[in-house]
Amino acid sequence: MLAGDAVRRALEAVDERESVVRAWAHCDPDQAIAVARRVDESLQPGPLAGLVLGVKDVFDTADMPTAYGSAIYQGHVPSWDAAAVAMLRAAGAVCLGKTVTAELALVTPGPTTNPHRSTHTPGGSSSGSAAAVAAGMADIALGTQTAGSTIRPASYCGVFGFKPTYGTVSVAGLKLVAPSLDTVGWFARTVPELDAVRVVLTGRSPYVPLTEPPRLGWLRGDDIDRADPDSRAAIERAARVAVEHGADVIDIELPADIQSLSSKQALVQGYEAARSLTWERTHHPDLLSPPLRELLDWGANVQPAEYDGVRTGTVRARAGLARSFAGVDAVLTVAASGEAPADLNQTGTPRFNRLWTLLGVPAVNVPGLTGATGLPVGVQLVGCDDAAVLACAGWLGERVLPI
Amino acid sequence: MLAGDAVRRALEAVDERESVVRAWAHCDPDQAIAVARRVDESLQPGPLAGLVLGVKDVFDTADMPTAYGSAIYQGHVPSWDAAAVAMLRAAGAVCLGKTVTAELALVTPGPTTNPHRSTHTPGGSSSGSAAAVAAGMADIALGTQTAGSTIRPASYCGVFGFKPTYGTVSVAGLKLVAPSLDTVGWFARTVPELDAVRVVLTGRSPYVPLTEPPRLGWLRGDDIDRADPDSRAAIERAARVAVEHGADVIDIELPADIQSLSSKQALVQGYEAARSLTWERTHHPDLLSPPLRELLDWGANVQPAEYDGVRTGTVRARAGLARSFAGVDAVLTVAASGEAPADLNQTGTPRFNRLWTLLGVPAVNVPGLTGATGLPVGVQLVGCDDAAVLACAGWLGERVLPI
Repeated sequence: MLAGDAVRRALEAVDERESVVRAWAHCDPDQAIAVARRVDESLQPGPLAGLVLGVKDVFDTADMPTAYGSAIYQGHVPSWDAAAVAMLRAAGAVCLGKTVTAELALVTPGPTTNPHRSTHTPGGSSSGSAAAVAAGMADIALGTQTAGSTIRPASYCGVFGFKPTYGTVSVAGLKLVAPSLDTVGWFARTVPELDAVRVVLTGRSPYVPLTEPPRLGWLRGDDIDRADPDSRAAIERAARVAVEHGADVIDIELPADIQSLSSKQALVQGYEAARSLTWERTHHPDLLSPPLRELLDWGANVQPAEYDGVRTGTVRARAGLARSFAGVDAVLTVAASGEAPADLNQTGTPRFNRLWTLLGVPAVNVPGLTGATGLPVGVQLVGCDDAAVLACAGWLGERVLPI
Repeated sequence: MLAGDAVRRALEAVDERESVVRAWAHCDPDQAIAVARRVDESLQPGPLAGLVLGVKDVFDTADMPTAYGSAIYQGHVPSWDAAAVAMLRAAGAVCLGKTVTAELALVTPGPTTNPHRSTHTPGGSSSGSAAAVAAGMADIALGTQTAGSTIRPASYCGVFGFKPTYGTVSVAGLKLVAPSLDTVGWFARTVPELDAVRVVLTGRSPYVPLTEPPRLGWLRGDDIDRADPDSRAAIERAARVAVEHGADVIDIELPADIQSLSSKQALVQGYEAARSLTWERTHHPDLLSPPLRELLDWGANVQPAEYDGVRTGTVRARAGLARSFAGVDAVLTVAASGEAPADLNQTGTPRFNRLWTLLGVPAVNVPGLTGATGLPVGVQLVGCDDAAVLACAGWLGERVLPI
């Protein structure tokens, strides 16, 4: 599709949906139209030409305000594009604007609503990016994940979301919150588009669509038991569909020392966030929301020895995980608690995503299923290889259909 | 010492030395005097009260311009203080200004000269910070190390320099170049001051001065053989002095797979820098120096598979290193090639620092010795524990004297 047509289609969706969905912190149709014209006139329009991009408002942009979802930074305009933004633009994607983020990519939500039902949260902290893609206002959108900020909103909004292996996409120009966890993630409505972004951002090879059914792991245990019936039903249905289509689904149990790290991710995040946001805490405590201030005060009191213990355990666990996952292409697990909560004052729990972010392994949300009231419920595939996980997501995504 | 007195003493040094040393990219005496007054009037002046701080101009500061040593960013004023700056200021350090950095903390030097002989390089990329501390224009100064940008200038300028374990100090608000390597480092004229900064920035406990002579490793092998006679003499003398004072000095040989990684650090740095600086490369190639442009073009062509191989090897080597270093408190090795080169167009080679940065382990430069022409030549202590390495540096630093 021509970039100009893609922008027109996205702008029609903005006209129709944005007043309720409120996905954009800043939207610049004129710039998008002008850039699209340049892309369409280019002799080398780039691999992402024809895709409209939304950028979570925690990535710096030189030509659009960047407020990090914080009252402290209203009207702030950085002096550069973050590396990920610059790479996507250089590849021909047309940036339509900045999408709403929870405050400093942490707890307190912005105004975005779930495109499938406006009284429900879109999830967070990449709220606007997931919602914009779900509502057709962008084809692809950048997010981040420090706990569950990409996979969870993707599940709630019914789009594909991907968090690559930690460290494979530069975080330069991203507002860092917890540097050992902060990972660039993104959203799309198809796996090929999701993968095209990965190829540009990481320089790695495209995934190879599966010609044979995959071997999938099924991670049983505590976490599944704590999900809503909707998420349990979704994962069971996904597994059944996979088997019906010839996949092997193999039970996998994580060693207790790996599983137990899940509950420690919050400690790492809080510890690092309190230190990374020292300036904001010191100079503008009054402009931080009370829940964020409380989180940072808690993080400031996490003891370095406890933090170091979790980091050491994580390095060990990451090596152990490769052994646990050795026999499968990807592992099926819960993406989010269930349907999006009917509450715009929260973004749902990242509990099903924390472990994978801490371990730095790739995770993808596969949409297609729905819960009891008809809202999207995704399933999460995790693994140790980005391309393998995406290939499984492509295979499974074509086969799961709304219940 | 009162903060006001410390600032006055630093300003006298600025008056006397700065016209030749040129350590400052921005120096604000009025602000420093005003802040020092507030510190001295405070009931809780903080653990770093009485210390004057220089900040490498790759750390964002809300009240001082931050140009990253780049023509692209002349006059740029960020909207916050980098986490490390905010933590040091909150602890009572008085920031006198921003110190000269090589262009974007990479190759092309700024105007700083070596305080010991102005025709010689101070080293880089933390040129101004090392020189400011050496010339008495600051008591402590923030730097960074991605290859050898803290330890090397510390050696050339004859001050203590410390690079802590990777990930222990937040890089939020630092201009990232190679995020998997970029480490906050710093300079001081004494080990207790060096350690006081560590306690504030990392929240870890102070080091305990040694009451018994340490067990030191001596890393023989290729790298020592490639150092100048001055550096070889310095390390031999340091080892002899240590033995004379009762230390055990034990030969350590690194496994070949660890040693060989040293030559791969440049590949990781180039790969990541080319991607992290995408915006600069895309929008302002004409404002990058030719050597930097060349480095980034080279880095852009490093293949992801090769990069991934080095990263995987590094994780394995880091685990192996702990075994190699198990029997000693710290390991004595070369800090820099020798005396500072008599060339202001280069900053010397980081070859003796690359491996330790890649492995993310602590390193300290111990000053006190000199080379054939009387310029400083440091020795480097590395290890696996920040406090242990600093304790050894304190012990050794009191015992080595100029040859």
